[in-house]
Amino acid sequence: MERIRIGILGYGNLGRGVELAISQQADMELVGVFTRRDPASVKVQTEGVPVRPASELDEGADDIDVLVLCGGSATDLPEQTPRYAAKYTVVDSFDTHANIPEHFAAVDKVATIGGTIAIISCGWDPGMFSLNRLYGTCVLPQGTDYTFWGRGVSQGHSDAIRRIDGVADAKQYTIPVEAALEAVRSGANPELATRQKHTRECWVVLEEGADAAAVEEQIVTMPNYFADYDTTVHFVSQEELDRDHAGIPHGGFVLRSGETGDGNPALIEYSLKLGSNPGFTGNVLVAFARAAHRLSVEGQSGARTVFDIAPAYLSSHSGDYLREHLL
Amino acid sequence: MERIRIGILGYGNLGRGVELAISQQADMELVGVFTRRDPASVKVQTEGVPVRPASELDEGADDIDVLVLCGGSATDLPEQTPRYAAKYTVVDSFDTHANIPEHFAAVDKVATIGGTIAIISCGWDPGMFSLNRLYGTCVLPQGTDYTFWGRGVSQGHSDAIRRIDGVADAKQYTIPVEAALEAVRSGANPELATRQKHTRECWVVLEEGADAAAVEEQIVTMPNYFADYDTTVHFVSQEELDRDHAGIPHGGFVLRSGETGDGNPALIEYSLKLGSNPGFTGNVLVAFARAAHRLSVEGQSGARTVFDIAPAYLSSHSGDYLREHLL
Repeated sequence: MERIRIGILGYGNLGRGVELAISQQADMELVGVFTRRDPASVKVQTEGVPVRPASELDEGADDIDVLVLCGGSATDLPEQTPRYAAKYTVVDSFDTHANIPEHFAAVDKVATIGGTIAIISCGWDPGMFSLNRLYGTCVLPQGTDYTFWGRGVSQGHSDAIRRIDGVADAKQYTIPVEAALEAVRSGANPELATRQKHTRECWVVLEEGADAAAVEEQIVTMPNYFADYDTTVHFVSQEELDRDHAGIPHGGFVLRSGETGDGNPALIEYSLKLGSNPGFTGNVLVAFARAAHRLSVEGQSGARTVFDIAPAYLSSHSGDYLREHLL
Repeated sequence: MERIRIGILGYGNLGRGVELAISQQADMELVGVFTRRDPASVKVQTEGVPVRPASELDEGADDIDVLVLCGGSATDLPEQTPRYAAKYTVVDSFDTHANIPEHFAAVDKVATIGGTIAIISCGWDPGMFSLNRLYGTCVLPQGTDYTFWGRGVSQGHSDAIRRIDGVADAKQYTIPVEAALEAVRSGANPELATRQKHTRECWVVLEEGADAAAVEEQIVTMPNYFADYDTTVHFVSQEELDRDHAGIPHGGFVLRSGETGDGNPALIEYSLKLGSNPGFTGNVLVAFARAAHRLSVEGQSGARTVFDIAPAYLSSHSGDYLREHLL
C-alpha cells in the first residue's frame, strides 16, 4: 500500500494531536514536522520523523501529499492557509466562525489557481458539529437547532483570566446547563438566553499578595467573556491546578428538535465527550487529510469544507467494504 | 425557482410519509402518486395531486425528476429499484442490511447503463445511523461501535406475533437496556450479548377463547425473533391497543467509544427519538431525493448510498449560505 505522506506545520497542542492521530492510521506516514522555531529546539514524539524548518515549504517540499496546518485561527491560519494552499494540498481547523466566509474565499482563490485542494475548518466545531447541524436541518427542515458546549476547557476564557493583574494561572470550564438541555430534549423548543445555556467555572491561582475579591469581581464582570453568564470562581494553589486541571477535555451537544412532515415530533441529538480537545481535533483533521488527498488525486481543486466531502472519502476502506459493514 | 418534481411509487405508511415530507420542502412538488392498485381506490392527502397507475411509469412519465420508491424491502424493492432506475432518477429505503451489496450491484448496473442516479438505503438505519457509524469509525479509528434501537415499534416482530394462532392483533416494542447504554457511555467498551442490549415488550389482543399461556409461550420461545431476548407479554383488549399503541414511534442510538491518537478517551453519541418511523424515513428520503436530482443534473450516473453524498447536496441552500450559517 502506498501511504499518504503528511506534513505538519506548527507544533503546539494541535500539532502533537495530529502527529499522534497519524499513528492510528495504517495508510498514512508523517514525513516531517515543520516549524518556524529552530528545528533543533523541537522534539517530536514519533521516532525517525525529522523536524524541518518552515522555510523548506516555501522552497517546495516534494515529499508531501497533504500539509496539515496546525496554527491558531487568530493570526496564523488567515496568513498560512492561503500561502501554503498555493503549492500544497492542505487542511486546517480554522475556527473563527464569523470569518469563515472570508477565509474560504481567500483560500479558494489561491487553491483554484494553484490546482490544489484545501479543506478548511475541520475539527469538531466547526467540523463534526457543523455536519450535524447541516444533516439535522436537511432531514428536519421544520425545527430548531441548539448547540451546547462543554463540559470543557475554554482556552480563550482561561487566557482572559490569566491576563488579569494578580492572576498567576487559571483554567476555565464551560458547562452546559442540564435544565436547558432537558428542555430542548422535551421538544418544548425553548428560546434560551446566553445565561440559560451555559455556566462558567473558573479555577484561579493568585499571585502572592493579590486581592481575591478584586480578582473575582474583575472576572465575573468581564464583558463578552463572563458578564452574560453565571460564573463561579474557585481559588486554588498552583499544585492543585496542576494536579486536578491539567487536561484539556471538551465536548458538547448538537440537537435538532422539530417535526416530520406528518406532524409527529422528532429529536436528533449528537454529542461528544472528549478527554482531549486537541487530540480529537487532530483525529478529525487527519481523516479529512485523507479526503483532501483523494480529491487532489482526482484532479479537483479549490477550497472545500466538511459540507462538500462525501463521507466515504474519509475512510481508507473501499465502497464495497463500507456498504457491507457499516451501512 | 424551478421546483424538483417528485413522483411516489407505493402508497402505504412510507408513501404517505414521503408525501407529507415534500410539503415541508419549498423547492419540491409532488406530481403524482403511482400505485399498482386501482387509482380510483387511493385517496391522497395533498390536494390536486393525481393518483396515477404504476403502468404509466413503464410507458415513460416525462414530468418526473425523481421517483421515490416506497415499497417494502422483502419483495418490492429488489424488483422495483432496478426496474425503475433504468429510466428514472430514484431513491429507495432498502433496509435488509445483509442484502445491500447485492441490491447495490443490481441497481448500479442498470443505472449506469440508463445514465440515471439511484440512491439506495436512505432512511435512518440504514441511513442516518450508517452515516454516524462511518463518521465515527473515521474520526476514531481505535474504538468500538454500538447501535441500539428503540424504544420503538418493530413492524416485523409485531407481524410475527400476529401470525400466531389465537392472536387477533399485536404491537411489539424494542427497548434498549439502559444499563448497557450506560456501560458503553462509561468508556468500558463492554462486549454485549443480544440479550444484554435490548428487551422486547409485546402488547397482544387474543381471539376469543384463545389460551393466553400458550400464546405467551409461543412468543417468548420464537427463534430469531424473541428466544434470545428478555420478552414481556401484556394482554390487552383491541380498544386498549388502538387507544394506547396506535403510533409508530422509533429511534435509537449509535455510539462510538474509543481513544484519540494521544491516548485520551473519546465518546461520540448520536440518537434519534422519533414520533413516527415512516414520517422520519420519508423526511430523509426527500432530502436524498434532492441530492439525487443534483447529481443527475450534473450528468452523473450509477448507484449511490448515503456514504457517497456530500452533505451540502442535501440542502436547498447555497454553499455560501451554509458556510455562513451552519459551519
